[in-house]
Amino acid sequence: MRDKVVVGIAGMPGSGKAVFRKTLQKMGYPVVIMGDEVREEAKRRNLEPTPENLGTLMLNLRETEGPAAIAKRCIPKLEKATEKIVGIDGIRSLPEVHEFKKHFPRFLLVAIHASPKKRYQRLFRRRRSDDPQNWETFMERDTRELGVGMGNVIATADQMIVNEGTFTQLKTRIKKVLKEILEDE
Amino acid sequence: MRDKVVVGIAGMPGSGKAVFRKTLQKMGYPVVIMGDEVREEAKRRNLEPTPENLGTLMLNLRETEGPAAIAKRCIPKLEKATEKIVGIDGIRSLPEVHEFKKHFPRFLLVAIHASPKKRYQRLFRRRRSDDPQNWETFMERDTRELGVGMGNVIATADQMIVNEGTFTQLKTRIKKVLKEILEDE
Repeated sequence: MRDKVVVGIAGMPGSGKAVFRKTLQKMGYPVVIMGDEVREEAKRRNLEPTPENLGTLMLNLRETEGPAAIAKRCIPKLEKATEKIVGIDGIRSLPEVHEFKKHFPRFLLVAIHASPKKRYQRLFRRRRSDDPQNWETFMERDTRELGVGMGNVIATADQMIVNEGTFTQLKTRIKKVLKEILEDE
Repeated sequence: MRDKVVVGIAGMPGSGKAVFRKTLQKMGYPVVIMGDEVREEAKRRNLEPTPENLGTLMLNLRETEGPAAIAKRCIPKLEKATEKIVGIDGIRSLPEVHEFKKHFPRFLLVAIHASPKKRYQRLFRRRRSDDPQNWETFMERDTRELGVGMGNVIATADQMIVNEGTFTQLKTRIKKVLKEILEDE
């Protein structure tokens, strides 16, 4: 049997990235969430998991342990998984991608893309507390993601899923990608 | 009649960007090529149009006139076009996108995406003198494009065309995008 496939999930806020994660999980495949590593480290340091603290801690970890700090901390969890596919959610920069590629011969980077207009509509309709309330806040969030290197990750993805349509269309497309991965044995 | 649509074309090397430009031109729509501005400036300065000279001049223009220097110089040409659609080829950074959006209410950014593997195959098969001879050169060229800001442009495109298939499939997809633009009157 060939190595398991580690599927990296990338996308801008509101692109539909979470649907990919949930689809994997519902199909019985584990997903390692990079943000969880930061939350666990915050716990170890007795820090309140506020967005500010988590943001500062993430930058701190990158500064002291290098740009792939969070990725490196996820490797043991990914290695432990015995399933044919294991997802990794929260990739934001190319050094992280290179770290995963170095460890997993079958690493596949999947990006989900939607137009800024569509992403704005989705985030605004959802009205979660941390969602942008207006276009300016939306642009600030986009700029923050791009500043870390998300654009480079998306531009060099192995698979690009365009998500301008419905939720059902997205799920169908995601399942097709996963089916192709499983058939490539 | 509504304003003309200015269509920005973005994509990594080997993505199929040139097919978009040629399709527009064959349909009778003009395309302003950002690199031509640099070549014209080189002529005015009596510089040989070698890749080195053009690269240095481009950086020089950005330093002295700002990150949207080349975009600004393209605006008069875009304004002069009387067709319903006019293309702009060679966008590499978000400041350029913002410059075009500021001037043209109907600016549409189209990105063409192909996986690194596919792009490498295409560039290698083409064997043009400036094409990568091996994976390392390919990666260097990718890094250069991403360094200027191409990833950010692609990640925030209004339309994403995935080009993993044949030349004919790409042309069909491009024509569909242009048809939708023309129908949106």
